Amino acid sequence: MSLRTDSVVAIYPGSFDPLTNGHLDLIHRGRRLVGKLIVSVLNNQAKHPLFTVEERMEMLREATADIDNVEVDSFDGLLTDYAVRRGAGVIMRGIRAISDYEYELQMALMNRRLRPNIETMFLLAGEGNSFLSSRMVKEVARLGGNVSGLVPAAVERRLAARFSAAGPESKV
Amino acid sequence: MSLRTDSVVAIYPGSFDPLTNGHLDLIHRGRRLVGKLIVSVLNNQAKHPLFTVEERMEMLREATADIDNVEVDSFDGLLTDYAVRRGAGVIMRGIRAISDYEYELQMALMNRRLRPNIETMFLLAGEGNSFLSSRMVKEVARLGGNVSGLVPAAVERRLAARFSAAGPESKV
Amino acid sequence: MSLRTDSVVAIYPGSFDPLTNGHLDLIHRGRRLVGKLIVSVLNNQAKHPLFTVEERMEMLREATADIDNVEVDSFDGLLTDYAVRRGAGVIMRGIRAISDYEYELQMALMNRRLRPNIETMFLLAGEGNSFLSSRMVKEVARLGGNVSGLVPAAVERRLAARFSAAGPESKV
Amino acid sequence: MSLRTDSVVAIYPGSFDPLTNGHLDLIHRGRRLVGKLIVSVLNNQAKHPLFTVEERMEMLREATADIDNVEVDSFDGLLTDYAVRRGAGVIMRGIRAISDYEYELQMALMNRRLRPNIETMFLLAGEGNSFLSSRMVKEVARLGGNVSGLVPAAVERRLAARFSAAGPESKV
Amino acid sequence: MSLRTDSVVAIYPGSFDPLTNGHLDLIHRGRRLVGKLIVSVLNNQAKHPLFTVEERMEMLREATADIDNVEVDSFDGLLTDYAVRRGAGVIMRGIRAISDYEYELQMALMNRRLRPNIETMFLLAGEGNSFLSSRMVKEVARLGGNVSGLVPAAVERRLAARFSAAGPESKV
Amino acid sequence: MSLRTDSVVAIYPGSFDPLTNGHLDLIHRGRRLVGKLIVSVLNNQAKHPLFTVEERMEMLREATADIDNVEVDSFDGLLTDYAVRRGAGVIMRGIRAISDYEYELQMALMNRRLRPNIETMFLLAGEGNSFLSSRMVKEVARLGGNVSGLVPAAVERRLAARFSAAGPESKV
Repeated sequence: MSLRTDSVVAIYPGSFDPLTNGHLDLIHRGRRLVGKLIVSVLNNQAKHPLFTVEERMEMLREATADIDNVEVDSFDGLLTDYAVRRGAGVIMRGIRAISDYEYELQMALMNRRLRPNIETMFLLAGEGNSFLSSRMVKEVARLGGNVSGLVPAAVERRLAARFSAAGPESKV
Repeated sequence: MSLRTDSVVAIYPGSFDPLTNGHLDLIHRGRRLVGKLIVSVLNNQAKHPLFTVEERMEMLREATADIDNVEVDSFDGLLTDYAVRRGAGVIMRGIRAISDYEYELQMALMNRRLRPNIETMFLLAGEGNSFLSSRMVKEVARLGGNVSGLVPAAVERRLAARFSAAGPESKV
Repeated sequence: MSLRTDSVVAIYPGSFDPLTNGHLDLIHRGRRLVGKLIVSVLNNQAKHPLFTVEERMEMLREATADIDNVEVDSFDGLLTDYAVRRGAGVIMRGIRAISDYEYELQMALMNRRLRPNIETMFLLAGEGNSFLSSRMVKEVARLGGNVSGLVPAAVERRLAARFSAAGPESKV
Repeated sequence: MSLRTDSVVAIYPGSFDPLTNGHLDLIHRGRRLVGKLIVSVLNNQAKHPLFTVEERMEMLREATADIDNVEVDSFDGLLTDYAVRRGAGVIMRGIRAISDYEYELQMALMNRRLRPNIETMFLLAGEGNSFLSSRMVKEVARLGGNVSGLVPAAVERRLAARFSAAGPESKV
Repeated sequence: MSLRTDSVVAIYPGSFDPLTNGHLDLIHRGRRLVGKLIVSVLNNQAKHPLFTVEERMEMLREATADIDNVEVDSFDGLLTDYAVRRGAGVIMRGIRAISDYEYELQMALMNRRLRPNIETMFLLAGEGNSFLSSRMVKEVARLGGNVSGLVPAAVERRLAARFSAAGPESKV
Repeated sequence: MSLRTDSVVAIYPGSFDPLTNGHLDLIHRGRRLVGKLIVSVLNNQAKHPLFTVEERMEMLREATADIDNVEVDSFDGLLTDYAVRRGAGVIMRGIRAISDYEYELQMALMNRRLRPNIETMFLLAGEGNSFLSSRMVKEVARLGGNVSGLVPAAVERRLAARFSAAGPESKV
C-alpha cells in the first residue's frame, strides 16, 4: 500500500489578533497530522484589528520559528480561492464550545459548496484553553488584567506596550 | 522541508450497525487526509446489535474494496489502547449536529486524558446525510420504509432480508 | 385570489403517555391553523408505556371533546406512510428546548426524505409548560408528588389510581 | 365538520437583503399551508442594508410573480402591531440551526407576550440550504465568489452589479 | 458545627440598561442565599448605553429600597479585581437559555483563571422571564410597544420619557 | 445590616455511583458558600447501580471526613419533599456542558414548580473535570483503563476490586 498523504497541505486561517496559547497549541498538534501547515492571517481591516497584519505575522513567526513544517502567510479574499492558489486540500480549524461550532459548521458548509474538494478538519481546543479567545485576551489586557499564561511572552509584551501607550482613558 | 505525514495512521471507530452512506462518504473523504485509515467495528454485544461484528465487517469490506489505503478491522476494550496497538496517532470521527458534538467532545476529552498523544480529528457529515444514522435507518427499515439511497445496495439487501425474516410482528 | 388551505389536514403524533397540559395547549393552538388536526397516538409497545393505546386515546378524547376540528386516532408503522393514508400534508410538533429541537430536526429531515411533500410545522411550547414532559409527569406522580395543573384532571385521577394500585414498593 | 383555515393569513417577515434560494424555498412550502402568505420586508435602515426596501421588494416580486397566494409588502415598527393591522394570525419563520433557534425562540416568546393570539409557526430550512444566509451570500459576492445556485438569477445579477460598481477596493 | 456563610458577600454585575423584572426577580431570590448582595452597574460607555450609570443605579435603588441586604454600586475595570476590592467571594449570574449559558460559561472560566478563589454561582431566570432582556425591552419600547409587566413601573416611565423625547424619527 | 445566610442549608443530590474528583471539587467549592452542605445519595435501584447506597455513602464519608460543614445522607422519593424534610432551601448542582445544562434546567424548573421557595444554585465543573462522569469512569474502569486522577484513591481501589472480581468476560 502506498502512503499518499505526504503531500497534504493544510491551511489554518484566522485573525490571530493576537496569537494566543490556544492557537499555538493547535498549531503544534495540527502540524503533526499534515505535510505542511500554512498558518495564514486574514487581512480584515474592516474589523479594526488591534495589530496590523505584519505585526500578527511577526508574532506567529516568532512563536513557530522552531517548527519545520509550519509556514506563516496572510490572505484576503475568499479562503477557498486562497487554498486553491496555495495548493492546499485541507482547512484546519479549532473548536472550543457549541457557539464556536455553529459558526464553524456554517463556514465549513459554505466552503464545501464553493470548493467541494477542499476538506475542513476540526481539532478540539485544549481543555485548559477552552475559555481562551483573542477577543477576551484583549479585553483583559485592556482592563489591566494579567494575561501571562494565556499568550506567548512576546505577545504579552506587545499587549502591554499597546495598552500602556493608550493610557488609562482607553479603559472601558 | 521533509514531509512527515506519510506515516499518519488513523482509526475510524464505530458500531457500523449497519454501514450507511454517511459513513461511506466520511471514509472516502477521510482516507485522502491520512496514510492509512483503519475502519474498525466496535464489538459491543451489550448493545444487542442487529448484525454481528463479522457481518458488519463484511459490509464494510464490500463497500471499500476499491480503496487502497483503507483497512477494515474490529476491536473491543479501550479505543485508545487499541489505537496504541495499531500504531495509530489519530482517531477520526464524523459530526453531524450539536447533540453529536456534545458526546463526541466528551469522548475525545476522555481519550486525550487516557492517551495525550493521540489526536481526534473531526470531519463534517455531508449535508445530504445530516439526518442519517444507523439507528434511524434500522427504524425505517423495520417499519417497512424505503432506505435506498441511505445505505449501500448490499446493506439494503441485508436489511430487507433481516426484517422480512422477522415478519410483520416485528413492527412496533 | 382563492384561499386554498381549507383542506389542510395536519397530524399531531406522539406517545401521549399520558396527555399533559403542554400537549393540550398545543392542540388548542395548532387546530386553529389547519382545517383538521388529527391527534394520533403512537402504538409503541416496545417502550413499555404506562397506559394502553386505548386509555391514551380515551384521555385525549375526553380533553378534546369540545373542539370540532380535532380527531383522535392511533397509528403504528412509519409516520409518513400513515400521513399519506390519512391524506395529511402536515405533521405538527411542539418544541420546548434545544435537546428537543435536535431530535425533532433529525426526525423532520428523515420524514422529508421519505415523503418530500409532507411538511413538518413546529409550534413553541407554552412558556409555562417548557419543563413539562410525560416522562417527568410520570416520575413525579410515581414518587407521590402533586401533578395537578400539569395534566388535565381526568389524567391526574388515572395517574393516582395507577400508582396507588401499585403501592409504595413502586417507589424507586 | 367545517374547515376553518381558509382565512388563515400568515406573515413571513425578514430583511431579505437580499432574497436567497433558502427564503424562496420557504415561501414555496409555507404558502401551501395558509390561505395567504404576506412576505414582508423589514425597513431596517439602522442596519445599513445593501439594498433599499424597494429593491428588496422588487426582487421578491420578481421571484414570486407566479404564485397566486403570496403578497410582497414592507413594514417598520413592531411586527406584532403590523400583523394586527394586516389581519394576520400567524408569523412564519424558517429555522436552520441551533443558533437560529435560540434567537427565533426569544423573538417568538416576546411576540407571544405582546400579542398572545398571534402564533409563530416554524418550518425547517431545506437541507441543501442550511448554510445559506443573506449575510454569507453578501460576503461571498463581495469577495468575488460565485453565488449562482444560492440566490435567484435576478438577485445574482444585482449583487454582481453592486459589487463590480464598488470596485476591488471594496474587498476587505 | 459552626455555620460560616454569614460573611458571604456576592456581586451581581450587569449593564442594567435598564433594570428588568427578570433582574429584579433574580435579586430577590439571590439575596436570600448570601449575607450581602452587591448589585453593581458596569460602566460601559463604549456600548453607548441608553441610560447613564447614575440613572441605572437610581432605578436599581428605587426598586430595591425595601431589601435590607442589597447594596447598589457601580464598577469599571476587571470584575474580578472589583470583587477583591469589595471583599466578595461570589459572582452571581442569571441564566436563561443556551446562548446565555455559552457566554456565561466562558466569562466564568476566565474569571476563575484570573481569581481562582472567586466562585460564580448561577441561578435560573424565572420561567415567565425567559425571553426578557434589556436589549429586547429597549427595542420594544423604541417601537412603541407596551413594556408594562416587563420592567418596574418607574423604569417604564423613564423608557416612555426617553423615547417620546426622541420622537417618531427614532423608529427603525 | 444583619447577615442572614448563616442558616442556609443546601443539598447536593446525585447518584455518586461512584464519587468522582469532579463531585469532590464541587463539594469543596460549594460548602464554602453555605452554612451546611448535605451531600445526598439517590436510592435509585431501578438504574442498577454498580455500588449500593451504603457503599456510595461510605466513599463520600471517607472523602469528606475532614470537612466540618458537609454531611452525607441518602434519600428516595421526591427531591423537593426531601429538601423540605431536611430544612434545606437550596439545591446545588454542577454543570459541565450543554447537554447537562438542558437536563438540569428541566429538573430545576420542575422542582421550582413543585416547591417555589427552594432555589437551585449551579456551579461550573472545574475545567479539568469537564469530561468526567461516573458513567464514563465506570466504562473506562470496566475496560481496564487507568482511572487514577479521575476518582479518589479509595474509589479507584473499589472499582479495581469490583471489575477484577467480575473477570475479563465482563468486558464489552
